[in-house]
Amino acid sequence: MADPTTVRTDARRHHDPQIRGFASDNYAGTHPEILAALALANGGHQIAYGEDEYTEHLQRVMHSHFGPTAEAFPVFNGTGANVVSLQAMTDRWGAVICAESAHINVDEGGAPERVGGLKLLTVPTPDGKLTPELIDRQAYGWDDEHRAMPQVVSITQNTELGTVYTPDEIRAICDHAHGHGMKVHLDGARIANAAASLDVPMRTFTNTVGIDVLSFGGTKNGAIFGEAVVVLNPDAVRAMKHLRKLSMQLASKMRFVSVQLEALLAGDLWLRNARHANEMAQRLAEGVRAVDGVEILHPVQANAVFARLPHEVSERLQKRFRFYFWDEAAGDVRWMCAFDTTEDDVDAFVLALKEEMAK
Amino acid sequence: MADPTTVRTDARRHHDPQIRGFASDNYAGTHPEILAALALANGGHQIAYGEDEYTEHLQRVMHSHFGPTAEAFPVFNGTGANVVSLQAMTDRWGAVICAESAHINVDEGGAPERVGGLKLLTVPTPDGKLTPELIDRQAYGWDDEHRAMPQVVSITQNTELGTVYTPDEIRAICDHAHGHGMKVHLDGARIANAAASLDVPMRTFTNTVGIDVLSFGGTKNGAIFGEAVVVLNPDAVRAMKHLRKLSMQLASKMRFVSVQLEALLAGDLWLRNARHANEMAQRLAEGVRAVDGVEILHPVQANAVFARLPHEVSERLQKRFRFYFWDEAAGDVRWMCAFDTTEDDVDAFVLALKEEMAK
Amino acid sequence: MADPTTVRTDARRHHDPQIRGFASDNYAGTHPEILAALALANGGHQIAYGEDEYTEHLQRVMHSHFGPTAEAFPVFNGTGANVVSLQAMTDRWGAVICAESAHINVDEGGAPERVGGLKLLTVPTPDGKLTPELIDRQAYGWDDEHRAMPQVVSITQNTELGTVYTPDEIRAICDHAHGHGMKVHLDGARIANAAASLDVPMRTFTNTVGIDVLSFGGTKNGAIFGEAVVVLNPDAVRAMKHLRKLSMQLASKMRFVSVQLEALLAGDLWLRNARHANEMAQRLAEGVRAVDGVEILHPVQANAVFARLPHEVSERLQKRFRFYFWDEAAGDVRWMCAFDTTEDDVDAFVLALKEEMAK
Amino acid sequence: MADPTTVRTDARRHHDPQIRGFASDNYAGTHPEILAALALANGGHQIAYGEDEYTEHLQRVMHSHFGPTAEAFPVFNGTGANVVSLQAMTDRWGAVICAESAHINVDEGGAPERVGGLKLLTVPTPDGKLTPELIDRQAYGWDDEHRAMPQVVSITQNTELGTVYTPDEIRAICDHAHGHGMKVHLDGARIANAAASLDVPMRTFTNTVGIDVLSFGGTKNGAIFGEAVVVLNPDAVRAMKHLRKLSMQLASKMRFVSVQLEALLAGDLWLRNARHANEMAQRLAEGVRAVDGVEILHPVQANAVFARLPHEVSERLQKRFRFYFWDEAAGDVRWMCAFDTTEDDVDAFVLALKEEMAK
Repeated sequence: MADPTTVRTDARRHHDPQIRGFASDNYAGTHPEILAALALANGGHQIAYGEDEYTEHLQRVMHSHFGPTAEAFPVFNGTGANVVSLQAMTDRWGAVICAESAHINVDEGGAPERVGGLKLLTVPTPDGKLTPELIDRQAYGWDDEHRAMPQVVSITQNTELGTVYTPDEIRAICDHAHGHGMKVHLDGARIANAAASLDVPMRTFTNTVGIDVLSFGGTKNGAIFGEAVVVLNPDAVRAMKHLRKLSMQLASKMRFVSVQLEALLAGDLWLRNARHANEMAQRLAEGVRAVDGVEILHPVQANAVFARLPHEVSERLQKRFRFYFWDEAAGDVRWMCAFDTTEDDVDAFVLALKEEMAK
Repeated sequence: MADPTTVRTDARRHHDPQIRGFASDNYAGTHPEILAALALANGGHQIAYGEDEYTEHLQRVMHSHFGPTAEAFPVFNGTGANVVSLQAMTDRWGAVICAESAHINVDEGGAPERVGGLKLLTVPTPDGKLTPELIDRQAYGWDDEHRAMPQVVSITQNTELGTVYTPDEIRAICDHAHGHGMKVHLDGARIANAAASLDVPMRTFTNTVGIDVLSFGGTKNGAIFGEAVVVLNPDAVRAMKHLRKLSMQLASKMRFVSVQLEALLAGDLWLRNARHANEMAQRLAEGVRAVDGVEILHPVQANAVFARLPHEVSERLQKRFRFYFWDEAAGDVRWMCAFDTTEDDVDAFVLALKEEMAK
Repeated sequence: MADPTTVRTDARRHHDPQIRGFASDNYAGTHPEILAALALANGGHQIAYGEDEYTEHLQRVMHSHFGPTAEAFPVFNGTGANVVSLQAMTDRWGAVICAESAHINVDEGGAPERVGGLKLLTVPTPDGKLTPELIDRQAYGWDDEHRAMPQVVSITQNTELGTVYTPDEIRAICDHAHGHGMKVHLDGARIANAAASLDVPMRTFTNTVGIDVLSFGGTKNGAIFGEAVVVLNPDAVRAMKHLRKLSMQLASKMRFVSVQLEALLAGDLWLRNARHANEMAQRLAEGVRAVDGVEILHPVQANAVFARLPHEVSERLQKRFRFYFWDEAAGDVRWMCAFDTTEDDVDAFVLALKEEMAK
Repeated sequence: MADPTTVRTDARRHHDPQIRGFASDNYAGTHPEILAALALANGGHQIAYGEDEYTEHLQRVMHSHFGPTAEAFPVFNGTGANVVSLQAMTDRWGAVICAESAHINVDEGGAPERVGGLKLLTVPTPDGKLTPELIDRQAYGWDDEHRAMPQVVSITQNTELGTVYTPDEIRAICDHAHGHGMKVHLDGARIANAAASLDVPMRTFTNTVGIDVLSFGGTKNGAIFGEAVVVLNPDAVRAMKHLRKLSMQLASKMRFVSVQLEALLAGDLWLRNARHANEMAQRLAEGVRAVDGVEILHPVQANAVFARLPHEVSERLQKRFRFYFWDEAAGDVRWMCAFDTTEDDVDAFVLALKEEMAK
């Protein structure tokens, strides 16, 4: 096979591959092993739309992580994974209980409502984490036709605030939800970071404690694109294939999604990438803690650091490194580390922060 | 940069890259130049969700094909491109006139209805092509609230039956539709094959003759994945970015979609791939015409050959080469050529056909 | 209780109650017995949203017509009854097979697609009636995710063309559909006219022959407003109450819907009204048959007469009596009789027709 | 015309018209003048689906209340009025800011999300009333495709908690929303009670202060059924007729909806009914205030009284009079008065409350 790095292409490089920031883990590119996997899966013909050998093999890889009943349905992106999952777990009259800060509520452009017709029953949380008590604020009225019926609890691991549920916390949620006849969905856009943080297999805080359906995230973990709905409890869903297709999440050349997930999950690439990103966040947090006037806002348990600092300092710092305000009025910012963040990146950033704080 | 073909990956090859069939152009893998382009775009950080340098540059590439008002919105797949386009061109109360055989009507799992709430007003056609007269069977009742309002005509180029509209035929449709206040969408999942067949630039049968919005197809033309809604008439759409997002078609690492389209369109890869596939279809058709008892059904104008032959012959042949029945009751089959189909593939297939017909 | 005809109201009469036409059976007002029933149900408090005594009693009335398993869910209008029914009978990924001329396809403003996300798989029919053979044109591909899944066959009795299925014809459809795992819905907007035409109880061509869910029509039969989804096979639906509410078809003061249906169905008002309308259509057809140059198009089996006559004659006639073109290009018209059509109305119309034809 | 009270009907009376409670204003029946209006509009033929004389005349009646640009679109029920309004005021990508306690959020079975695909951006409020400051918690991000676009602010007058906005409060909301390019919808299910409470014409707190679209409520004000979307600012909506139809809210015999609204609004029936209900609520509140241990929770400004009392007292009292818990855990109840509530009803209820409190 031709070496892709030497093959001539009419495309041109338009960016500087040495520049990285702290804006988001999906500002990063892809891990070289992912490109290698794409090359490996190329050539010849494979049945389209998921009947290929790579998607079949992916099932075995998923079984090694989530046990023999797990079934993976590769999709394009995280919003797709979430909205396909939630449709498969609900009826036309269903609703989903989630944290007010959940990605499905604040970052998916209304896709759950618009595509799925789903009402989200939200609960404010201090740290992005639901609890049985918080769930109970919305868990009622199943027989009341005037209320969209709560059928699913959706949680995010790690949360949008960089916090990580313990397995016991998730078990309590699942037990509570199941006791009410509801199912539990886990948005695992950053599940690898959570596993690395807890230092346990992914199943420990999913199947083992009662999660029914998982949105497995590959993109933020180093893939080019590609997530999967992983059905852990087959009784929790219906017609996954039909829902994936009608939700426009069915890749024709699916082998190229599946082989990326295989490249992540067959060995330890998923964990290497996640551990590294988490370590960089710890290094960053340590550096920041040494800077007077900057407050770290949430426990740094994964690859995100939330901080509060003077607004004008953030604005000056943003001219040197990309990152986002989280709550601009409050002066809160979010700094994300990725699989490709280097120690030098972190150290340079901390230095810059010190310089700007000192001005 | 590391050479992807030598980088170690935990993924394994699960298929024989020497085996090809005639089932579909999306059974093919990707062109090596596409892999090279992905490698080129990798490394460093780029703004996610479409604010990257590659997506910006793609606009210039698209301008070279479709003129300075064209704007490309990369999406994941063809169904996504179509349903985002049609939503952007219609109101909540809108309907779309299309051929009964249109992909949006028969092959998208009801996504236009389910995701877009769109009613499709279909017309039977002999060859997959609409005409002003055929459109008129559904083009009425704009003021009648009891009828979903026809706001768009959608045509496919080349059609699902492998036929190709002439620029004049499309102009007649556009003039007719515009005269009724309707817009025109072109599903260009195989637009490159049509351009190669007509031997004209793509704009000749799109902008120039009145097409408002185009679903540009990259996947069947050799990409890994990636299509784009190309807005040719900015007045024909609204809120494209919002609709792409809420339709779950917004890629986070969009640079990797855009660079594939650049690799196809910056030079002539798109045309080389399409011409080759078309030539293989011509070679196949010539070979088939020499076989008694096999009837070619539609003009072979792009990369598809439709044929009628004894059902049991098809079944035996399918054990040697993959392909699909088109109308099993009638004995009709579809044979597709792709960018990677070789002359040897075609010759071997024709030989096998002769052998099976002779049994 | 005050006599409504003597109670002072600030509303004024704005129309001439002596003028009737042949445009539609819902141009008619309501039967006086319906007003009497409304007065009867008035006064005092009744639980809202369907927990009232009238809705409860309606179940017993429905049982007398459709047997003890029937359950009625009153709704506002026919489109509501159909779309609630079809949603209750399908999943998110379901589709409905129906005649191209079906009301759900041509007269509901796209509500099945827009509100229910339902794809309609239509079949052209000569007389508005489906058959097992016609159904088979769309009954396939249940496992194919690229196709919306056919889960329901919907027929209309009597049809939109004034024709009436025999019980055996419906039985054949139901057996065929059930054999494929599909359910059968009957749009009975004019079910009373069909029963009067066949001279059999309504159950003879519904439950008895396999209909699962019925849209029972009260409005065209003399009610002010009010239809009901009548579930004949409880296993064919789910969550009717929730679907009725979220489809905005739940009346708060439901007693006033239910008592109208009781007034129609507790005795023979439904049948008197329907028989009368059918008889007027027969009288009209007989009169028309005596007029040279006017062709009756379909069997006159209920309360509609379809005819073909010179376009200019229709236009002159429309200045004297209201009615609609059915297919203006072909010169086809539809003349509807209602519960309040008189013999004099018919005779005057036939006379006018003769006069205009003679000009 | 026959006297409806003497016309024989097969319907039977199933309830005691002397029993009333405090559960809801839609537990009441209809005002006798409404029945008189229905009788008046009966007889003869009128064009269906809104082209009748009564619907035309209704426009003039509405003009007398809301000025010459107002246009009324009669619909079946309040959920229908709200969801049709909000669809007409938004695009496919739009969202609606409302109070967490809004009827559209908590009492419509998810119809806004399911039928309209609308995301509701909710804000907790102490008394059911939004303010510019509260709106600002959700009014941002119009250019951010990751967020459903806030296009409408929806308020309820009087609120679900029985409180009434002053005209100035609504003006401040409208000015603020308009300043952000958003439109303002008023859910006027009990608008008559608000007008009676404020003792001003309805226009004073609608058109005059900037409301764009009004859901006008007739049912709770004494109609059998019937509400109307009243478009006050024609630029704020599009395609009302199409949206009403596809939302299944188009009555075929619309004259019977319109004449009810005429009966309410042509004279002062709307105001008599509302004033009476409000006065009964004041009488109730006064009686309750004299009972030790019962706390009135919100200002009693319309026809609702919210109170807190021992749970077991409520349960005993519910055996004598129907009413609902509002927040069962807190012991909060809601007592509603209607147009037909009598002074004796109130006095008997207060007496019973005293008796039960004393036990």
